[in-house]
Amino acid sequence: MKTPRYTSLLTTLPASVPFVGPETQERALGRKFSARLGANENGFGPSPKAVDAMRDAAEEVWKYADPTSFDLRHALARHHDVAMENIVVGEGIDGLLGYLVRMLVEPGQCVVTSAGAYPTFNYHVVGYGGTIETVPYQNDHEDLDALLTRAAETNAKLVYFANPDNPMGTWHNGAYIEARLDKIPDGTLLVLDEAYIEFADDNVAPKIDINDPRVIRMRTFSKAYGMAGARVGYALGAPQLIAEFEKIRNHFGMSRISQIGALAALSDQDWIKDVNKHVAKARGQIAQIADQNGMTTLPSATNFVALDCGQDDVFARAVLEELAQNGIFVRMPSVPPLNRCIRISVGPDEDLDLVARVLPKVLEKLRS
Amino acid sequence: MKTPRYTSLLTTLPASVPFVGPETQERALGRKFSARLGANENGFGPSPKAVDAMRDAAEEVWKYADPTSFDLRHALARHHDVAMENIVVGEGIDGLLGYLVRMLVEPGQCVVTSAGAYPTFNYHVVGYGGTIETVPYQNDHEDLDALLTRAAETNAKLVYFANPDNPMGTWHNGAYIEARLDKIPDGTLLVLDEAYIEFADDNVAPKIDINDPRVIRMRTFSKAYGMAGARVGYALGAPQLIAEFEKIRNHFGMSRISQIGALAALSDQDWIKDVNKHVAKARGQIAQIADQNGMTTLPSATNFVALDCGQDDVFARAVLEELAQNGIFVRMPSVPPLNRCIRISVGPDEDLDLVARVLPKVLEKLRS
Repeated sequence: MKTPRYTSLLTTLPASVPFVGPETQERALGRKFSARLGANENGFGPSPKAVDAMRDAAEEVWKYADPTSFDLRHALARHHDVAMENIVVGEGIDGLLGYLVRMLVEPGQCVVTSAGAYPTFNYHVVGYGGTIETVPYQNDHEDLDALLTRAAETNAKLVYFANPDNPMGTWHNGAYIEARLDKIPDGTLLVLDEAYIEFADDNVAPKIDINDPRVIRMRTFSKAYGMAGARVGYALGAPQLIAEFEKIRNHFGMSRISQIGALAALSDQDWIKDVNKHVAKARGQIAQIADQNGMTTLPSATNFVALDCGQDDVFARAVLEELAQNGIFVRMPSVPPLNRCIRISVGPDEDLDLVARVLPKVLEKLRS
Repeated sequence: MKTPRYTSLLTTLPASVPFVGPETQERALGRKFSARLGANENGFGPSPKAVDAMRDAAEEVWKYADPTSFDLRHALARHHDVAMENIVVGEGIDGLLGYLVRMLVEPGQCVVTSAGAYPTFNYHVVGYGGTIETVPYQNDHEDLDALLTRAAETNAKLVYFANPDNPMGTWHNGAYIEARLDKIPDGTLLVLDEAYIEFADDNVAPKIDINDPRVIRMRTFSKAYGMAGARVGYALGAPQLIAEFEKIRNHFGMSRISQIGALAALSDQDWIKDVNKHVAKARGQIAQIADQNGMTTLPSATNFVALDCGQDDVFARAVLEELAQNGIFVRMPSVPPLNRCIRISVGPDEDLDLVARVLPKVLEKLRS
């Protein structure tokens, strides 16, 4: 008998990962990227209060973090005007999506998502043996009507819907979602991924009863709060649903320094307002760069911009690879017609200035 | 139809958690513990080099960590004289144990552990629907012969064996394990949890071919390295086994600051030597305190000492609870006869001085 004996599911899984990190590309290229604009990180950084809190916490890292994340959940409850029992904190939205899929999806059961949407969600679904059903984007927007229709057709356990959307940056107003809540099929849970919501206008977040059992919302400190490396995400939902995470999550999975940093970051909402000014300006800069190069950009309510390269995915990939050769890390969507675009995260002026200098040369080379 | 629809497994799981954190007890008590000696944290703290590295990394927390943990795995490979492909880094040993159980155990399949051994391992086994078979400790030591015999009887996928052991602190020399490797049943993987190995003498770690498919070893930065709050563990094993983690793990689950801190901590082996001097001295202090109170301690190759309270679990629990009332956080084993003991983590002089002052009063109260 061969040792070890893996589960029958594991032996069917591909050896693929949802994202290759820029560090792996840097090692292949033999040098560091000059501009890190591919992972929708927030180059404007975290609140100085969060940095100070994390620095102060370093010496006490010999202590485990509170496995209940009490202080952070307490502060988040106040921030969102909900109860602590409506909140679970986890190792980024990635970690929470993994737990959620594990809680709901048995091998062969369906989930629904948009073709080209967040690959890490799909990674978890495949990892638990679920079946992924997709619907296409409509005009570069996720299509909640089609998602819910497909959910009804496939008896789906979960529907994934990101608003604002990644990788396109587009969004629906909250009213669009609110109007469709009653179309969620019985027995289907809507995962509303709001990783980028703090970048959007106030009317983008739908008003949903926090105790509505049909929806779970995902939030993160990775984007607007500028703390991607800290791995702090949280889910908002009905207490009964949130309580189920306790049965399976890694209770001691959270970094103590990260929790303390997130708490401080949350307290500095002025910083988020400033970040949003920088982000809005940077989105304008990227649009201008595109315009100067005969390209267009999609509207964005996020900290990144999808830049339409105007041809097919082969061309877009060539642009991406040439940018990488010139020290600029960006990514691109995975399926047509989204993959006519590359996705540029906003960043400080020096990063975007580099894009402005490099892109004309890249296009000249590829068009000639 | 009720929403959400959980998996049939989830609905059978208890709403229990492996450990209640001291913060929860502190909130119940209405005050902070003066001495935090219950979670086998290392109160002597991490290397100042690790602290400095984490402080320096705080400002760059807007970047995701390298999902391959390349630099840390590279350094660990050198440290252990193995290949990078023999190492996977994860969110503490807790996180890695969860992944491992998921990789191997299908509902109803058996794993074997010692009655009273690490509860978080059991939590994961239950969480994936596995069946736990236990064998008793023998003279407060884990009994590898009995574990392997039970594994053969139950067709176990996994056997859990901690060396040195938690919660008793006892150990077997490496030769004891080496002599039993050929008794591992075909199809059974031995999980050798070496969380405390850096505290033990050199002859405690067995010499096992790193590519031996029958064994996976778990290590951590939580104990000797004093970084429990950072959540960095790693597993050492055959490349084929290590590669399987890639199919299911949360690739972006690691804190960037933690990875950078662990890398710096690993480079400061002199600090570990100093820590071990402090730990040895503190173990002696605890033995002396026990002796002064008419109690005995078990030999320990860890940073904690099991203190035999000399009566049953009711008495030991009363001691533990009285200590808590007096500001001292300790824990105790969960099953007889281990639970005649309480488990005191080593700590700085001021913490142990408090134990020395409080314990006589506690015993006087309980014995009267």
